[in-house]
Amino acid sequence: VGLFGDNRDVEGATVMNACYGGTAALLSSVAWAESSAWVAEKPYAIYVAGDVAVYEAGPARPTGGCGAVAVLVGRDAPVQLLPGARASYAEDAYDFYKPVMGSEYPIVDGKDSQVCYARALDACYMQYARRLDVADGVDAARGIRESSGHVLFHSPYNKLVQQSFQRLLFLDAVRALAAGVTLPADMEPLRPWAEPCAGTCDPAVWEPTYTDRGLAAATKAVDAAVGGYDRYVAAGASASQRVGNTYTGALHANLLGLIDQKAGSLRGTRATAFSYGSGLIATMFGLDFPADHSGPFTVERIAETAKLSCSLDSRVRAEPEVFSNAMRMREAAYGKASFSPAGSVADVAPGAWYLEGVDGQWRRSYARKA
Amino acid sequence: VGLFGDNRDVEGATVMNACYGGTAALLSSVAWAESSAWVAEKPYAIYVAGDVAVYEAGPARPTGGCGAVAVLVGRDAPVQLLPGARASYAEDAYDFYKPVMGSEYPIVDGKDSQVCYARALDACYMQYARRLDVADGVDAARGIRESSGHVLFHSPYNKLVQQSFQRLLFLDAVRALAAGVTLPADMEPLRPWAEPCAGTCDPAVWEPTYTDRGLAAATKAVDAAVGGYDRYVAAGASASQRVGNTYTGALHANLLGLIDQKAGSLRGTRATAFSYGSGLIATMFGLDFPADHSGPFTVERIAETAKLSCSLDSRVRAEPEVFSNAMRMREAAYGKASFSPAGSVADVAPGAWYLEGVDGQWRRSYARKA
Repeated sequence: VGLFGDNRDVEGATVMNACYGGTAALLSSVAWAESSAWVAEKPYAIYVAGDVAVYEAGPARPTGGCGAVAVLVGRDAPVQLLPGARASYAEDAYDFYKPVMGSEYPIVDGKDSQVCYARALDACYMQYARRLDVADGVDAARGIRESSGHVLFHSPYNKLVQQSFQRLLFLDAVRALAAGVTLPADMEPLRPWAEPCAGTCDPAVWEPTYTDRGLAAATKAVDAAVGGYDRYVAAGASASQRVGNTYTGALHANLLGLIDQKAGSLRGTRATAFSYGSGLIATMFGLDFPADHSGPFTVERIAETAKLSCSLDSRVRAEPEVFSNAMRMREAAYGKASFSPAGSVADVAPGAWYLEGVDGQWRRSYARKA
Repeated sequence: VGLFGDNRDVEGATVMNACYGGTAALLSSVAWAESSAWVAEKPYAIYVAGDVAVYEAGPARPTGGCGAVAVLVGRDAPVQLLPGARASYAEDAYDFYKPVMGSEYPIVDGKDSQVCYARALDACYMQYARRLDVADGVDAARGIRESSGHVLFHSPYNKLVQQSFQRLLFLDAVRALAAGVTLPADMEPLRPWAEPCAGTCDPAVWEPTYTDRGLAAATKAVDAAVGGYDRYVAAGASASQRVGNTYTGALHANLLGLIDQKAGSLRGTRATAFSYGSGLIATMFGLDFPADHSGPFTVERIAETAKLSCSLDSRVRAEPEVFSNAMRMREAAYGKASFSPAGSVADVAPGAWYLEGVDGQWRRSYARKA
């Protein structure tokens, strides 16, 4: 037993990079579980992926959301990282950032942010798909529909999730053409845009495709024709659709949503996950749901314990004005010392913790709802 | 080759916990190097341990410093983590923090911070020493002087480093008494304080020892008598003594200082390192300098490349008023948009980067000195 309590013998610190922080914590935790630092007596890492996902009053405000996900990481898990199936992309970008110290609201250049995101998605997927093929000993350029049962995305808003999956279909066409594989008939509509990109890494060729409305319409039509989004993406986008963007919590919430909706059929399948954090850094990685997993934390048990759909169903509807008022209270309180929250705790769930006050030295105290 | 450049396929994010961030990055990087995510074609992690170590005008200001350390982590390194020799301690504390969003200056409760630090040091060392004994198959309670050739500490100011090593001598006395080992004659003066602590984890017994002036004097005398600090600590505290506290860079700078001063004799020795970050989290870990290491980055080569003593010798002396003026300029610039630094770049070293300006959207641009 450690001096002053063995439960204080923990490592780790806050990991930050916009919506990528939780993914960095995931990858670190898995590396720890595989490393010599792992010990059988204390076999788990835990990380909490959460963020302040609010926007100032205006068109972006409704995309904000609220949610945090606690994830336990250990060996022999019901969800595992696929060995060798991982690719990242980093770039110095000002697509979304919070430079104003007195405010929680970000500065966002929406159009630039979308292009940054798309470029990162392209870079990650092209490398990821190649590595996954190598890991599986597959020669031909497999498409996302062949390599993955489900696809999870970071989800600022659902339209971007749809567009992201559609983009992967386009990249599959590029990969097939680059590999000299016959383009499947249902992908033929993408050929005019895919052919120039096949076999080149020149940004001058790729950049125009991010804003090409004709390509966007064509990939959307291909997706609709093959039923791609509904089959591969919808279940793993449901949580974010219901709670809004939770920034670094989003991908983790989406994984939980997938487990919530598909627990019974996940064993023996694989998923592809894409995480993006402005600034920017992104990683695409493969997930495996082992068919024969029997540890204490099965996917079925996670689904039963989290009861995500039930929790979301039990939410109370409020008018936008109520939310706007809450945001105004939050703005007025931000950074304050000697502060007592004015809001009612009537809506705080039983057993949940809430801020009781901030003293003159900015020290926070919390209370628990009975 | 990745799309848009293979050198963009990197992982990682900012790791923060006051002066502990760099250590968290170190432990994560080593875990990564040991994990299945490591690949031979890209065998290194790099982290930069740096921080803003400034205080408002007043008695604490002279303890601030300036420095950042870049550390390359890979397999078969010249400095390795000792397997099994690691212990951590975490606690929710307000000993040092930066709650004022418009200021870089921390709120510090000096006395409380010292007790927090001492408690963390106690908890880590008692667990660490036990684990190191187990790892080495040693029965008796070895002291720090037997288990380690050098001891590195986080170093807010040098007096705390001296007191920390003296505290380890006290803890060695506690360990010896608890294990029923005969107390060495040179440790006898510590018996009156060590006996009550031996065999108990009761904070009520331990807490008074943190502020006991008699004990502080006794450990200082024992240290002086055995020449402990000079032999085990001085070389690994030299860097911080010369540059001041660099917060999360300090422990890493001290390791570099040790290598700078002792490169020729480090092979085949071990060191014990203690990292502390307010808030609080702390880890003590063992370092090994393999005798037969022959990789590309030997300790001798690191010492030759860094030329730490030479760099520090080449600094230009300035009066306190010059520093105060620089701090006032920094205060006025903090958080500003549409800002151009007013300071001269005459003192910027050739080849170094400096801030050129901040535009109306808080986007920063940098230039490089010719």
